[in-house]
Amino acid sequence: MKLEAILSPLELPALGKRDLRETVCVVFDVLRATSTFVTALHNGAKAIVPVSEISEALAIKKNQPDVLLGGERNGIRISPEGIDFDLGNSPREYTPEKVRSKTIVSTTTNGTRALRACFGAKIVLASSFLNLSATAKFLRQKNFGDILLVCAGTEENTAIEDVLAAGALCEILSSSATVGTLSDSAETALLTYTQTKSDLATAIGNSQNGRRLLVIPELRDDVAFCLQRDIFPIIAKMETNGAIRRG
Amino acid sequence: MKLEAILSPLELPALGKRDLRETVCVVFDVLRATSTFVTALHNGAKAIVPVSEISEALAIKKNQPDVLLGGERNGIRISPEGIDFDLGNSPREYTPEKVRSKTIVSTTTNGTRALRACFGAKIVLASSFLNLSATAKFLRQKNFGDILLVCAGTEENTAIEDVLAAGALCEILSSSATVGTLSDSAETALLTYTQTKSDLATAIGNSQNGRRLLVIPELRDDVAFCLQRDIFPIIAKMETNGAIRRG
Repeated sequence: MKLEAILSPLELPALGKRDLRETVCVVFDVLRATSTFVTALHNGAKAIVPVSEISEALAIKKNQPDVLLGGERNGIRISPEGIDFDLGNSPREYTPEKVRSKTIVSTTTNGTRALRACFGAKIVLASSFLNLSATAKFLRQKNFGDILLVCAGTEENTAIEDVLAAGALCEILSSSATVGTLSDSAETALLTYTQTKSDLATAIGNSQNGRRLLVIPELRDDVAFCLQRDIFPIIAKMETNGAIRRG
Repeated sequence: MKLEAILSPLELPALGKRDLRETVCVVFDVLRATSTFVTALHNGAKAIVPVSEISEALAIKKNQPDVLLGGERNGIRISPEGIDFDLGNSPREYTPEKVRSKTIVSTTTNGTRALRACFGAKIVLASSFLNLSATAKFLRQKNFGDILLVCAGTEENTAIEDVLAAGALCEILSSSATVGTLSDSAETALLTYTQTKSDLATAIGNSQNGRRLLVIPELRDDVAFCLQRDIFPIIAKMETNGAIRRG
């Protein structure tokens, strides 16, 4: 098993030139897209359809009125042309009562871009601290050849919470005899995690996204929520049509 | 002072879209291009002209026969069309006897690409562990606004020795009151360095480039050479024509 990581969203376009057919991609957008997806699927959502643009979400809703629309821009729930989105982007909103048996169309710029960059891979998973061990268990059981950890980042920048989750997954996978080499990028993620794991809350609280969320009263608890380790024993798998389901 | 880092060479093309006029770029290609440049300049070389292609080096030599040609491909000194290059890419070859008062045209793929990506920046420095404190001293004296640490990497990949040198520079600069915020990428470099600084030789020995060099008998000592801290009290500054001189 070879472990590699993409630490910046600016590395994503180059994925299009690679043959990913034998590679398993694991996408992290810890604050908050992939944490929200995993929470929703654990709480019974049928599928998540990630889209980049609000207009894409509205177009799907027009054809399938029973989908829920989720997402936010700058921490505020979206209300285009008087249509209220059903959900924001806080995982704590995605309760069983709200999401059970529902398909959720979720707008997320970086999460969608990262997931779409992995199209063509053998398997694409969306992961987070919330289901890290379940993701690792799946990867170890199958003994895949190449694993690419994709840190979705924020706008054009590396987001350290994604690097830390990727590093935490490296730590679990490295403890297995099946892992051969770590690329320098995967090693960077692992070392960054090792240095901070005794106090992840501080490391992520100082990050660009952490600082942004912690000053918004309604959203600040999302940071602690998304740092919870292994509360959901599920994997989230992207289908070839781009929808994400419980695997 | 704002500190930011580019951890992968795949992030370089996006630099072309940024306004770097108020940014100081510091380029690291620790194994071995920038370490070699700094060594050569310390030992009296007049200038280094980094080029990507062997053909570029030969074209310059044709017009300026007194330049020295330096570089290697896969650890072997270059001998195209029967013309021996004067120097390989090992910093230990760049002795005062060989390089004093000479202009050296040096072929290095990633180093050149990283330096060229910084064209238009306020100042561009080539740095390494060998002159890290001198680089930091220069940056602190001038109290620049934005500093971008550029890890040149290897081919399309992150090279951890570049991340570690960038992290070491972050550590020095962070200890100064003049540093405001670290981007998540700079923080990743700093944490990676903090985790490994007590045994950098092992961390770099396990890296992609470290492993490659350590199995070549004539080059293995380059790894330990390039890890030496602050043996050269100079800075290496790129001019607008792309040549690098002692600053």
